[in-house]
Amino acid sequence: VGREFELIDEFVRALPHAQPPRGPGDDAALLPRGLCVTTDALVEGVHFTRPFFSLEDIGHKALATNLSDLAAIGASPTWWLCALGLPKGFLAVRALAAGMRPLARRYGLTLAGGNVTASPVLSVTLTLAGQARRPLLRSGARPKDLLYVGGRLGDAAANFVAQRRPTPLVEEGLVASRFAHAAIDVSDGLLQDVQHLLDASGVGAELQSSALPMSAALRRLPNALELALSGGEDYALVLAVPPSKRRALERVWPRRVPLSCVGRFTTRRGLRLDGRSVSPRGFQHL
Amino acid sequence: VGREFELIDEFVRALPHAQPPRGPGDDAALLPRGLCVTTDALVEGVHFTRPFFSLEDIGHKALATNLSDLAAIGASPTWWLCALGLPKGFLAVRALAAGMRPLARRYGLTLAGGNVTASPVLSVTLTLAGQARRPLLRSGARPKDLLYVGGRLGDAAANFVAQRRPTPLVEEGLVASRFAHAAIDVSDGLLQDVQHLLDASGVGAELQSSALPMSAALRRLPNALELALSGGEDYALVLAVPPSKRRALERVWPRRVPLSCVGRFTTRRGLRLDGRSVSPRGFQHL
Repeated sequence: VGREFELIDEFVRALPHAQPPRGPGDDAALLPRGLCVTTDALVEGVHFTRPFFSLEDIGHKALATNLSDLAAIGASPTWWLCALGLPKGFLAVRALAAGMRPLARRYGLTLAGGNVTASPVLSVTLTLAGQARRPLLRSGARPKDLLYVGGRLGDAAANFVAQRRPTPLVEEGLVASRFAHAAIDVSDGLLQDVQHLLDASGVGAELQSSALPMSAALRRLPNALELALSGGEDYALVLAVPPSKRRALERVWPRRVPLSCVGRFTTRRGLRLDGRSVSPRGFQHL
Repeated sequence: VGREFELIDEFVRALPHAQPPRGPGDDAALLPRGLCVTTDALVEGVHFTRPFFSLEDIGHKALATNLSDLAAIGASPTWWLCALGLPKGFLAVRALAAGMRPLARRYGLTLAGGNVTASPVLSVTLTLAGQARRPLLRSGARPKDLLYVGGRLGDAAANFVAQRRPTPLVEEGLVASRFAHAAIDVSDGLLQDVQHLLDASGVGAELQSSALPMSAALRRLPNALELALSGGEDYALVLAVPPSKRRALERVWPRRVPLSCVGRFTTRRGLRLDGRSVSPRGFQHL
C-alpha cells in the first residue's frame, strides 16, 4: 500500500495536475462550480472473488465505495460513468446492474455513459460526480477540533456481510459539511486514514480507544481493537469538528448511524492512542 | 462486437440513465452547462501487447482515444481522471505518464484525480471532460447533408505506427462543431461507425469509394479499400455538413488534416457504397 501512494505521487508529478487541496490526493477532486468527481475500481482477485461475492454484491460495492468518496467531500451525487471489463463469455451485466440499482435510485444518480471491454478478469471502474456547496477537504482540520467518527469501525474486517454490502454515508457527509472543518472516509483502516488527514492538515491527533464505535458482536472478538483501528472497508467518516459546532452537529446527525467523539486534533504532530504514539501501519506490531 | 452493444443496452436499461441523445450511446455524455464526459479503457492483451506497444505508446493511445471522443462531440478538453490497473511488480508509471504528457499539455488537460489498483494485466481507464458550446451529437444528420471524413482511413489497420500513435482531431472537432449537424469518430471502422450515426439520426447514406481519404502507401496494398472501410482505430471524424456550410467549413478547416467529401445522407435508409448496399460488418464477405 505504501508503494501505491508513491506510485500515484510519481505519476501525478509527471503530468499537468490540479493543485492540492483541489486535486489528486483528496477523496474526490474539486472542480469549478462545486463539481466533485471521483473514480474507483473493483478488480476480481484483488477486491473480490466469486462466488464469495455475488454479482449483485460486486455491483453494490462498486457504487458504495465511490459514493463514500463523495460523502467524505460532502457532495450530493448527480451522475456517473461505468467502465466494465468483462471476461470471455460473461453476459450477466443485468445482475451487476441489479446490485447497483438500489443505491443509484436512492441517491439520484443518473448513468450518463460508460465503456465495455474484454478483460482477463471482471473489473468495474466507476466515475461518480456530485455537487458540493461547502466541500469538506482533508486539509481543513485545526488543533482543538474534535475528532468524530460517523458509523462503526471493524465490522467489515470481522463480518462478511458488512464487507460485501457497505453502506455509504452520503446524507451524513452532507450534514457534516455544514459543521466540520475536514473529513475523510475510512477505506484503509482508521489509523491510516486519520494519518492522511493529519498529513494534509499539518496537525496531530489523540484518540481514546474506549470511545471507538464498535458493535457488540465485534467487541466479543479477541482482536476487536485491532480490527477497529486497522481493518479497512468500513466506509465510516472521520470528521474534524470545531467544539463550537459540537451540539449543532449532534442535533441534526441522522439517528440510524452512530456518531462518536473519539478524540481531538492537536498542534503536536503525530497520532496518539490512549496517550501512546501509534504508527498507522504498525498497530499490530506494538 | 455486436454482443458488446447488446450488453451495454441491457446494462443501461436496468439503471436510471440519461436519455439519448444526451447520455449513453454517444461518443461522450452531454451534461448540464456544456460539460461533456467520456470514459474509455485500454487493457493489455485486448487492446495492446507488450513490448510491441511501449509504455509511452500505451499512455499516448489511452489519452488519444478519449480525446477523439471529445473531438467527435466538439468539446474543448478540460480535466481528466486516470484509473490504473498495475500488474504485480509494475513500477514504471513515469513511462506511462511520459506518453500522456505531450497530449495533456497540447490540449490543456489537467489531471484532477485517479485511482491505482493491483490487476492481473496492465489497464488504463481514463475519464476525460470537456466543454462544448455547440455539441455535435450522432443524431443530428439530415437527408441531403454531405458526408465528410476528416483525417485518413485505413492507416491504423495497415500501419503499426498509426495504430500505436493515433492523432486525435481535437481542433478539427471544434471547427466542425460550428458547421456540422452531427459527427462520430471512426474507432471501429468507417462502415460500422457511419451506421451508428445513421441509426441515431434515422437516415441513410451513400458513399463513393473513389473519394475515400487513403494514403499513397495504403493504396498500394491489395486490400486497401477493405482496410479503409472496415479497419478500426483511425480516429478520423465523420461529419454531416449541410450543403450551405460546405464552403465555410472547407475554408477554416486546419490544413494539416485532409478533409474529404465522400458521400451524402439520404432519406432512403441503409448504407450504399458506389450504388450497392453494404452491411457495416459484412464488407469482407461481399
